[in-house]
Amino acid sequence: MIIVMQKNATEVQVQHVLEFIATMGLKSHPSYGEERTIIGAVGETRGREGLQLIAHLPGVEKTVPIMTPYKLASREMRAADTVVCVGRVAIGGPDFVVMAGPCSVEGEAQTNESAFVAQKGGADVFRGGAFKPRTSPYSFQGMEAAGLQLLRQAGDRVGLPVITEVVNPEDVDLVESSADILQVGARNVQNFALLKKVGRCRRPVMLKRGMMTTLEELLMSAEYILAAGNPDVILCERGIRTFETATRNTLDISAVPVLKERTHLPVIVDPSHAAGHARYVLPLAKAALAAGADGIMVEIHPCPEQALSDGPQSLRPEVFYRLMDEIRFMANLLRPALRRAS
Amino acid sequence: MIIVMQKNATEVQVQHVLEFIATMGLKSHPSYGEERTIIGAVGETRGREGLQLIAHLPGVEKTVPIMTPYKLASREMRAADTVVCVGRVAIGGPDFVVMAGPCSVEGEAQTNESAFVAQKGGADVFRGGAFKPRTSPYSFQGMEAAGLQLLRQAGDRVGLPVITEVVNPEDVDLVESSADILQVGARNVQNFALLKKVGRCRRPVMLKRGMMTTLEELLMSAEYILAAGNPDVILCERGIRTFETATRNTLDISAVPVLKERTHLPVIVDPSHAAGHARYVLPLAKAALAAGADGIMVEIHPCPEQALSDGPQSLRPEVFYRLMDEIRFMANLLRPALRRAS
Amino acid sequence: MIIVMQKNATEVQVQHVLEFIATMGLKSHPSYGEERTIIGAVGETRGREGLQLIAHLPGVEKTVPIMTPYKLASREMRAADTVVCVGRVAIGGPDFVVMAGPCSVEGEAQTNESAFVAQKGGADVFRGGAFKPRTSPYSFQGMEAAGLQLLRQAGDRVGLPVITEVVNPEDVDLVESSADILQVGARNVQNFALLKKVGRCRRPVMLKRGMMTTLEELLMSAEYILAAGNPDVILCERGIRTFETATRNTLDISAVPVLKERTHLPVIVDPSHAAGHARYVLPLAKAALAAGADGIMVEIHPCPEQALSDGPQSLRPEVFYRLMDEIRFMANLLRPALRRAS
Amino acid sequence: MIIVMQKNATEVQVQHVLEFIATMGLKSHPSYGEERTIIGAVGETRGREGLQLIAHLPGVEKTVPIMTPYKLASREMRAADTVVCVGRVAIGGPDFVVMAGPCSVEGEAQTNESAFVAQKGGADVFRGGAFKPRTSPYSFQGMEAAGLQLLRQAGDRVGLPVITEVVNPEDVDLVESSADILQVGARNVQNFALLKKVGRCRRPVMLKRGMMTTLEELLMSAEYILAAGNPDVILCERGIRTFETATRNTLDISAVPVLKERTHLPVIVDPSHAAGHARYVLPLAKAALAAGADGIMVEIHPCPEQALSDGPQSLRPEVFYRLMDEIRFMANLLRPALRRAS
Repeated sequence: MIIVMQKNATEVQVQHVLEFIATMGLKSHPSYGEERTIIGAVGETRGREGLQLIAHLPGVEKTVPIMTPYKLASREMRAADTVVCVGRVAIGGPDFVVMAGPCSVEGEAQTNESAFVAQKGGADVFRGGAFKPRTSPYSFQGMEAAGLQLLRQAGDRVGLPVITEVVNPEDVDLVESSADILQVGARNVQNFALLKKVGRCRRPVMLKRGMMTTLEELLMSAEYILAAGNPDVILCERGIRTFETATRNTLDISAVPVLKERTHLPVIVDPSHAAGHARYVLPLAKAALAAGADGIMVEIHPCPEQALSDGPQSLRPEVFYRLMDEIRFMANLLRPALRRAS
Repeated sequence: MIIVMQKNATEVQVQHVLEFIATMGLKSHPSYGEERTIIGAVGETRGREGLQLIAHLPGVEKTVPIMTPYKLASREMRAADTVVCVGRVAIGGPDFVVMAGPCSVEGEAQTNESAFVAQKGGADVFRGGAFKPRTSPYSFQGMEAAGLQLLRQAGDRVGLPVITEVVNPEDVDLVESSADILQVGARNVQNFALLKKVGRCRRPVMLKRGMMTTLEELLMSAEYILAAGNPDVILCERGIRTFETATRNTLDISAVPVLKERTHLPVIVDPSHAAGHARYVLPLAKAALAAGADGIMVEIHPCPEQALSDGPQSLRPEVFYRLMDEIRFMANLLRPALRRAS
Repeated sequence: MIIVMQKNATEVQVQHVLEFIATMGLKSHPSYGEERTIIGAVGETRGREGLQLIAHLPGVEKTVPIMTPYKLASREMRAADTVVCVGRVAIGGPDFVVMAGPCSVEGEAQTNESAFVAQKGGADVFRGGAFKPRTSPYSFQGMEAAGLQLLRQAGDRVGLPVITEVVNPEDVDLVESSADILQVGARNVQNFALLKKVGRCRRPVMLKRGMMTTLEELLMSAEYILAAGNPDVILCERGIRTFETATRNTLDISAVPVLKERTHLPVIVDPSHAAGHARYVLPLAKAALAAGADGIMVEIHPCPEQALSDGPQSLRPEVFYRLMDEIRFMANLLRPALRRAS
Repeated sequence: MIIVMQKNATEVQVQHVLEFIATMGLKSHPSYGEERTIIGAVGETRGREGLQLIAHLPGVEKTVPIMTPYKLASREMRAADTVVCVGRVAIGGPDFVVMAGPCSVEGEAQTNESAFVAQKGGADVFRGGAFKPRTSPYSFQGMEAAGLQLLRQAGDRVGLPVITEVVNPEDVDLVESSADILQVGARNVQNFALLKKVGRCRRPVMLKRGMMTTLEELLMSAEYILAAGNPDVILCERGIRTFETATRNTLDISAVPVLKERTHLPVIVDPSHAAGHARYVLPLAKAALAAGADGIMVEIHPCPEQALSDGPQSLRPEVFYRLMDEIRFMANLLRPALRRAS
């Protein structure tokens, strides 16, 4: 951490800061310039609450952190890519992974049909929501436990591992018992009680970035799960909230190279929630692949007009098949090149 | 809801939409213009999932909702202001309410001293965090149950009701048993499992707006609590996330008149979290009062340099006393005028 | 335009609105629902100032525009893609166009060397700034007229057309006399005096989206140029301003499919300004191509450490050559597919 | 400026940075920590383009600026408040200044009537737009030169100085010849050609913050005007663009205390453009006063239903009179207190 003193800071104020740093068990390196004094504080600064108070000491203009606040999630801690394995699927490895399925599990027929479409199209993982976080209390809230069972059965029937969202710490054990990957949704990215709980379970966790979450905060939330003992964390960019209203959210495509640089964890892109319109999903899926993402998650529905949630952004089966054709064609050509480039 | 058909929509497509509306149990009012057809769908539309699918039907260009998606929280439902009473304190009535206390309960001495300062300054409610939602897993996470007890004792000692945050549905019963008001923090504004749980408890709930939550979404989250049976909801504006970095968040002062217009629920402003710097708290507190808020929540600490969290934005006792003098002076002059104006 | 009346609007108020619509020369289509009345106003509404006043009439709750406010820029007006030709380069056609060059023209050697690198790498257009809009008055403001001349000479030497920014209406004639394409920068996207002026010149204009400009506003700014008589407008997405600070701006990759849907004008992406770091330019350039952009503009510099502006985001020659290899490889494979898909 | 070296930076890389700093004419102060080396670069750094290139040198992780990039606008340069005098009106002094008038000058009767209302209500300055920057080329663009004349005559008739916007450097001389204060609008806050031009004129300039402009950038734009020789700059906060759509823009009320701390220039708030709805103008005007602003600018119209621009946010005469009563009442009570507090 660097401490910048005010232009007119007194020598007594500087001494006060140096003593404060010493009592925190850190070493200080002051530089006395003509205009002002600058002090470096060196040592283990993570989790040292007191450090932020330095900004409050008399004579201090501002403080500047040097180290990233996350540790286990960082590339410095682990240079090699983490590959999360679920059955035969390896997320974060050379293959471009596709997770597909309906927004919500709505019933047996719809779930089975969706699983069939996902498998026929060549998806690697089947998705579906049983617990739905909805803005309105009057909206469909999901089939809950019954939905989990339908999802599991549909996945087994077509031979695909399943991913589903968990929204309440109380439900983690139940969801863990029937899903292969647990998803923490965008609205819960800083639900720390939930993060700690999924950090203690034995299934991989896909953590979605919140609409308002910086990449650094996303990595801090991943750190909660890693620090609780679960090494299998997958990150997911799904669009952030901006002033632009042409799309439901703004897909932050730059998040892909930035995250791949800073962390060893796999990075998935969800173009469906970012776009909010089925017709933009294909170009955004291709962009995600081109930018270096490890995979995508897309919403499909056998009949989007009848979906109980997110119908407008769900792909019809024939559109999904075309997306898979184009994505597989591109991935075969680009992934080897991407590997070499990295 | 209004449905705007595409310029080149066919008569068959228009019929299809009209039938869809009828199957939803709604009445339709088509207007056939020269350029395009516009259809109004009238009836109870809240909680009707299917309606959003109309946007997906062939020939439809867009749909426009007419009614607010919240109901119990709306002024249309209840014209008179809701006044939430906690002991002798009435939130949402003619008095301007001040909630003050430390960010975190850190120990007995600090809590008692803070409560003494709050009471001496003339605060109405004592605040303090026992369960802390922190960005980093390595930061102080709060004293939890022990902290709740210290808070309760300190409040009782100075005769002030207490407010504290709850972050996990599993802790709601515990927090309800020792606090007078439960707070749902900004990061949990769309933690629907938590909202449902506090909606079933018998204590008032103060719901903070999230950093990227629209006012409509805030009202929808309040609706979750109201719909679960708890009528005593207090809203709190605490700054939203924008591109500006001079302050920790951007206090959306316009939220005050907008919320007072749309809902009957009391509106509190938290200038401490919005500003992130103690020196901006006083002008923002005054602005909140002038804009028509029902009260403020401010962070104080007997010694901000030693605070375990949010020290830089906490007020020293003498600064808090000055704030209270200026606020009480202004409130005495303005509140009657505000009443008349509304 | 649709007018939604308040729940308790009187019949007199509805009549007042109907008369107001009639005096504007439009036809009205009222729908009388049980809860409220909705009125459609049909006819040519573009440029009808008075229409927005309807929102202000007694009894009106809100108004909803139906038509896009731009006309010449819209796909409805012209279904086929506009192809802007500059010498042998066709922007908006089947080829993926690359514009490359230094942020600023700094001197003869640097300009000639940059042009050589651009041409050797296979760029189609040579870029360079002679008039520089800089945040600080103390920063290098560009070589102005002398810079224009160096740019022209360097372009001619390597046989590439040149593009350069114009910041002042007074300079449009001068810039038009020596550049092949005029660029209007992000900060001038709503400098209407400048837009009108370039709308009257005979050279193509590349219009950059502002940091906080919606896509609709960008199209309205393009409409200014088109309405003034210049049909050769190229749009450029270069990142918007959001809360995320990991990149200089947030590249709104969804802007590509949204713009390609709404307008016939070519769409270029500038990954250099969006990212702000040279190391993210290649993945973002690929994403732009994959999403369907018609080309990219990238900053290169023979020696970025010595650049007078934007050094950190400029590509070294060898990195640029690699980018061109990868982009050309991808474009050869994907562009035919993109064409078929559209 | 502080340079933070990478964890694994070599001694040669550190030496390279030290030499680079020396060639820029600055002194360096390296601190060799156990984990990494940190280097302070001290001296006059404003306008030193080369400095940003340090971030690009091998082994450098990041650089951190220490000094504010503006100089003439800073409180460090001038501790006392700047008071801009226009006739008998002193902006930035003890009185709270009110500027009022219509968005656009639309004709003689409307202008005279508006001036009469402004004067009768007790405004200090009369505003009105002759050159209008409009999003759409099809919207009313202002009466231009004729409008300037009407504005001048109306101001003279009621004895109020006038303020009006200038949008084109070519018009500065014309506007200067008939207005008392020139306004640079939000969309032109980084139109540097215009800033330079108004910096050379002899009238005070009110500079509005852009929708996308940070406070630091606003101060840099003010610096352009000051550096060109014009000391009479007034800043105006008018709302920034965020995700919230309940108001036209989000009034950044915190800008008031932040600017008053950082600069000696007067700060005005425009609640009309921020809110976009007449009914929110009064509470926001009061909030501006309470937060310490030096004045407000509000839009009024004798008959908002007939306004050619911004009708919905314009105040009717009787509402304006009430606003003035409440504002004057508050200002009389609070301004002395505000003075003492600062």
